[in-house]
Amino acid sequence: MITVTAMKWAPPFAAGQVRDHRARWILNEVGWPYEVVLVDAPTMKSAAYFSGLQPFGQLPVLQEDGRPPLFESGAIVLDIAMRAGRCIGAEGTPERAAALQWVIAGLNSVEPMLFNVAEVEYFMEDEAARNARRPAVVRLAKERLSMLEQARAGRDWFVGDGFTVADLMLASILKIADRLALLDELPALGAWQRSILARPAHVRAEQDQKAEIARHTPADMRYDALAQESAP
Amino acid sequence: MITVTAMKWAPPFAAGQVRDHRARWILNEVGWPYEVVLVDAPTMKSAAYFSGLQPFGQLPVLQEDGRPPLFESGAIVLDIAMRAGRCIGAEGTPERAAALQWVIAGLNSVEPMLFNVAEVEYFMEDEAARNARRPAVVRLAKERLSMLEQARAGRDWFVGDGFTVADLMLASILKIADRLALLDELPALGAWQRSILARPAHVRAEQDQKAEIARHTPADMRYDALAQESAP
Ligand SMILES: N[C@@H](CCC(=O)N[C@@H](CS)C(=O)NCC(=O)O)C(=O)O
Ligand SMILES: N[C@@H](CCC(=O)N[C@@H](CS)C(=O)NCC(=O)O)C(=O)O
Repeated sequence: MITVTAMKWAPPFAAGQVRDHRARWILNEVGWPYEVVLVDAPTMKSAAYFSGLQPFGQLPVLQEDGRPPLFESGAIVLDIAMRAGRCIGAEGTPERAAALQWVIAGLNSVEPMLFNVAEVEYFMEDEAARNARRPAVVRLAKERLSMLEQARAGRDWFVGDGFTVADLMLASILKIADRLALLDELPALGAWQRSILARPAHVRAEQDQKAEIARHTPADMRYDALAQESAP
Repeated sequence: MITVTAMKWAPPFAAGQVRDHRARWILNEVGWPYEVVLVDAPTMKSAAYFSGLQPFGQLPVLQEDGRPPLFESGAIVLDIAMRAGRCIGAEGTPERAAALQWVIAGLNSVEPMLFNVAEVEYFMEDEAARNARRPAVVRLAKERLSMLEQARAGRDWFVGDGFTVADLMLASILKIADRLALLDELPALGAWQRSILARPAHVRAEQDQKAEIARHTPADMRYDALAQESAP
């Protein structure tokens, strides 16, 4: 039995973007059944969650009978793909290396640039400070995204001639870019992303996440309890 | 034949920290011989480098006869370890999953917090802006590092009972933290890091990088040429 933790509630702008969609997506791609465990904010910040599930108090966490809990959406995606022998190339092949390369490029060379724009738009409170910082972080993020588009070079897939975890991770990371309007000047990259997000395995992952979030209210995130509620 | 790109010259504070040390380190650990190809700044920013070697104009890049060039230090470390069958657990095992988890935690959950402190200390020019931003980014980075230390929980190794790529990546990422004085209040994490960096495979990687950088001058980084010089 596999479970994936997901947020009981999230702000509307985040519905569909919370990182558990990556775990759901790869599980749907390989056809492994799973259940969702909804957690609230106090649970994620409890000592038990930090020490037993996710050392940074975040999600997703994948749990499976007989295996230790696994965190980091990137690692969950790689681990499931490797174990299913799908979407990642065989061990030792150049395809495997290229898939790892693009997943890690997304996580280490692209996503951090987007965090910096998200910080300005969502988390900095001082208006003057936001305005002062915005141009530089937007410029760097757009530059990086444009380099990514150059590297894609019009191909449908980042690795070989079919869908891999590279496409999954990059299309997922581009959700953040899209929401921050950073893809507006890169229509081809946006169109590529939409073609990847149209895969049924992703559509279902996103819809499931949105439906669970819609069933709850902000107050659900304030429950002070370790009890975990499963999604129906 | 394997080659790793490295910088012909770097500022003194960066010597020993440039990310090609990760590629050298894992190659030394598994005992695969390699040569170093020194590149200068204009080479890294040339169209040929972007389109043929590294789409973001950075290094390291690993090149090997019969395989496409591989970038992202994280991917190079994972790929070499998997192919050598060393330091990463066997495909499908919980050890493999945990190794992936910690490598990616380092690259996606720890290193980005350190980039933000490095930006303040090395790249922001306006003194007032630096002073305004410093407290928040330092606090977040220290918080994350302290969570990492809690997760280590006094163990010698992040995965199982021996050295893996998880230790390599985290100890390497902590070099940035150490240089930014972010480990001063986490002496146990610092001591752990030093125990990992004392491995002969790392000591040799760092010394080789430092020696090559010392042989050159800032002017070497201004050569406007695609010609690549090999380290002796
Ligand atoms: N690097 C982690 C990031 C996880 C992450 O940022 N999770 C967010 C949701 S998308 C979270 O749990 N936020 C709650 C918090 O940080 O308090 C991963 O990819 O799994
Ligand atoms: N995510 C990349 C980062 C590579 C990186 O930042 N390389 C630096 C040297 S440590 C570089 O090439 N800097 C030159 C530049 O960005 O112009 C990796 O881990 O390989």
